[in-house]
Amino acid sequence: MQRTVSHLADGREIIYFDGPGAPLRTASDGRPLTPTITTSELRHDPILDEWVVMASHRQGRTHLPPVDQCPLCPSRDGADTEIPEKSYDVVVFENRFPSLSGEAGRCEVVCFTDDHDASFAALDQAQARLVIDAWADRTATLGERPEVEQVFCFENRGQEIGVTLDHPHGQIYAYPYLPPRTAQMLSSAQRHHAATGRNLFADVLAAERDEGVRVVAESEHWTAFVPRAARWPAEVHLYPHRRRLADLTELTDAERDDLAASYLHLLRTFDGLYEQPMPYIAAWHQAPRAGRELWYLHLQLFSIKRAADKLKYLAGSESALGAFITDVLPEDVAVRLRDVAP
Amino acid sequence: MQRTVSHLADGREIIYFDGPGAPLRTASDGRPLTPTITTSELRHDPILDEWVVMASHRQGRTHLPPVDQCPLCPSRDGADTEIPEKSYDVVVFENRFPSLSGEAGRCEVVCFTDDHDASFAALDQAQARLVIDAWADRTATLGERPEVEQVFCFENRGQEIGVTLDHPHGQIYAYPYLPPRTAQMLSSAQRHHAATGRNLFADVLAAERDEGVRVVAESEHWTAFVPRAARWPAEVHLYPHRRRLADLTELTDAERDDLAASYLHLLRTFDGLYEQPMPYIAAWHQAPRAGRELWYLHLQLFSIKRAADKLKYLAGSESALGAFITDVLPEDVAVRLRDVAP
Repeated sequence: MQRTVSHLADGREIIYFDGPGAPLRTASDGRPLTPTITTSELRHDPILDEWVVMASHRQGRTHLPPVDQCPLCPSRDGADTEIPEKSYDVVVFENRFPSLSGEAGRCEVVCFTDDHDASFAALDQAQARLVIDAWADRTATLGERPEVEQVFCFENRGQEIGVTLDHPHGQIYAYPYLPPRTAQMLSSAQRHHAATGRNLFADVLAAERDEGVRVVAESEHWTAFVPRAARWPAEVHLYPHRRRLADLTELTDAERDDLAASYLHLLRTFDGLYEQPMPYIAAWHQAPRAGRELWYLHLQLFSIKRAADKLKYLAGSESALGAFITDVLPEDVAVRLRDVAP
Repeated sequence: MQRTVSHLADGREIIYFDGPGAPLRTASDGRPLTPTITTSELRHDPILDEWVVMASHRQGRTHLPPVDQCPLCPSRDGADTEIPEKSYDVVVFENRFPSLSGEAGRCEVVCFTDDHDASFAALDQAQARLVIDAWADRTATLGERPEVEQVFCFENRGQEIGVTLDHPHGQIYAYPYLPPRTAQMLSSAQRHHAATGRNLFADVLAAERDEGVRVVAESEHWTAFVPRAARWPAEVHLYPHRRRLADLTELTDAERDDLAASYLHLLRTFDGLYEQPMPYIAAWHQAPRAGRELWYLHLQLFSIKRAADKLKYLAGSESALGAFITDVLPEDVAVRLRDVAP
């Protein structure tokens, strides 16, 4: 993998991740960009005892531009985009309208391919592997910054969940605080370890593999299952089952190659569920700074789509009280996913 | 207030709440209804240490029927609905497709008016007062059931948040477990009380009234403010400020009348924000069984609408990590709400 670091006209960092045989990345950004003034502020909610990020500079961000103005496509004559090169394999750059910035963290955009009309599921295995390498690289680099508590690699896919750019891309957030759900998971893991001496996630994974009814797919290194208490109409967790890892940086070459294949298989299975591109959130739960020993790297892939023409909405019970109510049994979802697997 | 209890053809309870001068409610349900078989199941998620409700019988529920088949309108010749009477003021009945049922709790529907085309904001004060009386009545009755940990009165309004029936109505859920957000709030309140000897909610309310910049409206008994760390593009909390109450059952007549006026004012203010009916969730946070002394009754009113033509979606950061990022400053939202107040 060839890694090239450069900077955009307003000083933001851009990093190319290329496979063998790619050209040198030497193009420079000719746009007359002025740096975005960002004003992220963290506020504490005393009633829920959680931090909320206020990023009031983001209201003006780019919203579903026409294809010929896509800022994530490569630049071409007469149309400069966020990526100065005429082509790329995988590229990561700092978000121009970041939710987190300065001492309040960092937001990066990961373009999975320069093909505007592709999707992650449509990548070949080598390309998916490059994305995994990019995630691992950014996790290592951002995780070293003293203000960062957790590095979060994720993809929001589909306009149904509010995606404002169609070009296949994901994001990386580096939080300057422990996100609420991570804190909650860490606290469960601590209690479980104190009570049993064992790793909570490893025990859940072992129980799912043992019971088997909710397992959707298994490869040499990876197991995908619908969790027993799934909250979403389609939800799968993907764990490396041969050993516990804290985050993506610890993956071996063999584990990465197998992940590329397993993850592609899982995404294609998701797209098969309603025979149409599935809106989804793919979220990598990586060890926060505060809990490497208690953690267990895993991916949470889920969708709000509950039928070909229906979405699940978070209404009063979920949004106000956090009480999730689901209409489908996880065992049934697992059966359907196994049925539609490519 | 006149209260009449009856039963629908499949045995579900229906309760009429009427103002002075209403006719006796004697109509019986002539439909050949068979009881819905419900299979709610609670499952524990060990990783987040939360309960999730599985209600797999709900997939077949009524979804946006045409107006002439609205099940919440009064019955008329040739068209029997869920309400046998030809008219009503306010009516509450057990949901035919409940998320919670049997030993797993109870779900009720509250019809705010028999006028299909109205909205809560369009009610007059006497009608709003009847709804408040109905909420208080149901809170008292359901709260007495030994399996119920919390009674939740709420309204989901607008197709943007997934409402499947247009007729103005709300819901009441009686949970057989402590909902996650309530548990979290209770735990903050306990810590605050242990550290200071004071009530957490009362301190937050006092600070907001003191600072004043986020206060949206104030009446004799009620104060509405945008919380300092609001998560939603429009969010207002409404508290009774003269004394602490655990739940709606403790409201005096004067407090109820003033609430009817204050709540209507608030809803009309919300509708004024984008000069169109605002999709919203209105959630009454009432004392759970486990924490009457530490609680403080309040309403949380919030919307996902962030511009006249844009919604806020919960994507990766919010849905997977619980890390809320908002684009608008609470102080600015308070200014705008005060500006558009009727």
